[in-house]
Order: sequence, then structure tokens, then C-alpha cells
Amino acid sequence: MTLPREYLGQDCPIARALEIVGERWTLLIVRDAFYGVRRFSDFRDHLELPRAVLTDRLNLLTEHGILARATAASGRDEYSLTAKGLRLWPVIWSLIIWGNEYYPSERPCRTYEHDGCGGVLAADGRCGACGAIPEPASLIAHPVPGNPKTDLVSQALSVPHRLLTPIAEVAAS
Amino acid sequence: MTLPREYLGQDCPIARALEIVGERWTLLIVRDAFYGVRRFSDFRDHLELPRAVLTDRLNLLTEHGILARATAASGRDEYSLTAKGLRLWPVIWSLIIWGNEYYPSERPCRTYEHDGCGGVLAADGRCGACGAIPEPASLIAHPVPGNPKTDLVSQALSVPHRLLTPIAEVAAS
Repeated sequence: MTLPREYLGQDCPIARALEIVGERWTLLIVRDAFYGVRRFSDFRDHLELPRAVLTDRLNLLTEHGILARATAASGRDEYSLTAKGLRLWPVIWSLIIWGNEYYPSERPCRTYEHDGCGGVLAADGRCGACGAIPEPASLIAHPVPGNPKTDLVSQALSVPHRLLTPIAEVAAS
Repeated sequence: MTLPREYLGQDCPIARALEIVGERWTLLIVRDAFYGVRRFSDFRDHLELPRAVLTDRLNLLTEHGILARATAASGRDEYSLTAKGLRLWPVIWSLIIWGNEYYPSERPCRTYEHDGCGGVLAADGRCGACGAIPEPASLIAHPVPGNPKTDLVSQALSVPHRLLTPIAEVAAS
């Protein structure tokens, strides 16, 4: 059954949030944006989702000011998280924690290091060492060995990678 | 375009979590379960979603051990959050916070009081007074005036209501 994106009659902040970020693939696109994915082709190659779906989701995220679209020096469109988009980090993190706890992969979990402090991000979103709530830009995602994928994003994440650092910059370096 | 529930090729905890709780309506059903909704008819009347969709979602949540189904003394089936389901609270809370911040209602936001302490739950999920991370069962949801809905769940939430307290008990008292 195809259901509408809106939750009519639900005057509730969760319903309003899910009308925007609750569609299939949308939060995985937002997660990739936290990884520093900026280009259409990189989202597509990493997520392996239908082109039309990616176009639709990027348009909605841009219309709602969660992603900003800009033309890069290369002449290509790039998408980056706005302040509003960055505030979705606790949603992403709480899903990571729950998914890792109840649907563990055969591979170990990726860890997120608080840069400069060295602590590991704990389930409650605080640094396990200093107790601060780090901004995503000060988190280093550590690789999980054994990823068989070879797309540009997977390659960039095969070494320690600071969140929000554009993937293209890593690939070019 | 109808998309499959699974994210094939996405070995990521968020994708695994969203395969279960990422379908339309599912997190609103989980939210209602935190409110203490336990009966099919109460979910249906409060959420106003198609019966077939509610059946499908309750079945998936039960199969995955997020809700437990049991026959109550009344002879009716009731659904309640398991330990695994209760661990979804940070996902629900982070969506509440983001939804309230960026898609505010005309009505004020519902507040959640840490019972016994009196502090109000802050954006980071901690009590604003004592700094603890309260269990959902120790949170009192305070009503927002002006809700036009009259179903049993809306009525129960029109007065201060401790999360997870069964709605039917409130209605009968």
C-alpha cells in the first residue's frame, strides 16, 4: 500500500519530523552527508539506490533547508548539511546505537573518537573521556575492517575520517 | 515508487534499524506505546491510520521483539514495549526535539517532567535539574492545551500522564 508522506491529523513533533526525514532512504542520505558525501554520484554509488529516489530525496532535503545545494568550483552541484541538518545528529546517533545493539553486524562496530580528547563517543552521545557532547565536526569515524565495497565513499571511510570532511577532498589527497 | 523495506547492500547499523522501525507510521506507533497505548483500537483511534497498516506494523514490531503481545484479563490482545522497545526512547526523543525546533506547532510543546525531581527533560535527554538520564517510566508527560481530539488516548494525555502507564487504566479510573 502506498501511503502519503504526510501524517494528516497528527499534530505531534515526531510526525512533523518524520514527514520530512521519515521517507525511505532519507536518513541514510543524511548519514552520508555527515560522512562528508556531497555529490549526487557519490551518494548514488555508496547507497546504490534508484536515481529517481535520490533526486526526490535531495530535492526535499534542500527545499526544507536540511541540505544546501551549491555549485562547486568544479562546476558540479554539491550538497552540504545546514545548521538545521546538523541538528539531526542525535537522531542518526540514536539509530546507530540501537541498530548496533540489537542488529549487530558480523563486523565490529565503527567507533567515533572525540578529536583532541581521544575519548570514544558513548551511547548517550557524550564523549566517554571528557563528558562533553562533541559537535559532529570534531568526531573521527574509525574504519571497520572487511568492507568489500570499493566506491569512493567506502574508500574514504577505510581510514580514520573526520565527519563532514568532504569525501572528494579525501579522494583527491 | 514502492520501495522494499530492506536496504540491500547497506551493512550499517542505521540501515538495519530503519529496516525495522523506518516504515511509515512505525515510530508513531512506538511513540504511542510509550504513552501507554496497548490496544489495537486505541492505536487506531488515536493515529487514524488504515487498519491493514496498523496490523502489519504491530506484527512486525512483535516479531522483532520490540512489542510483546499478550492476552489481557479482559480477553483482548494488548501490546507493550519490551526492553528492546524501551531502548528506542532516545530515537523518539531526538525526533521530538528536532520536530519541535524546526516545525513548531501553533500550540506550545509538551513538556516531560522527571518524576520525584521535578526537572524538565532537556534536549540532550537529561533532566534539566538533576542531570540524570531518566527512564521513560519516570517521566510525566504534561498536557498541551487545545487538543481538539477526543479519542481515549487524547483524553488520557489531557492531564499529566506518566509514560508507559496503560491508557485503559487511566480511562477506567
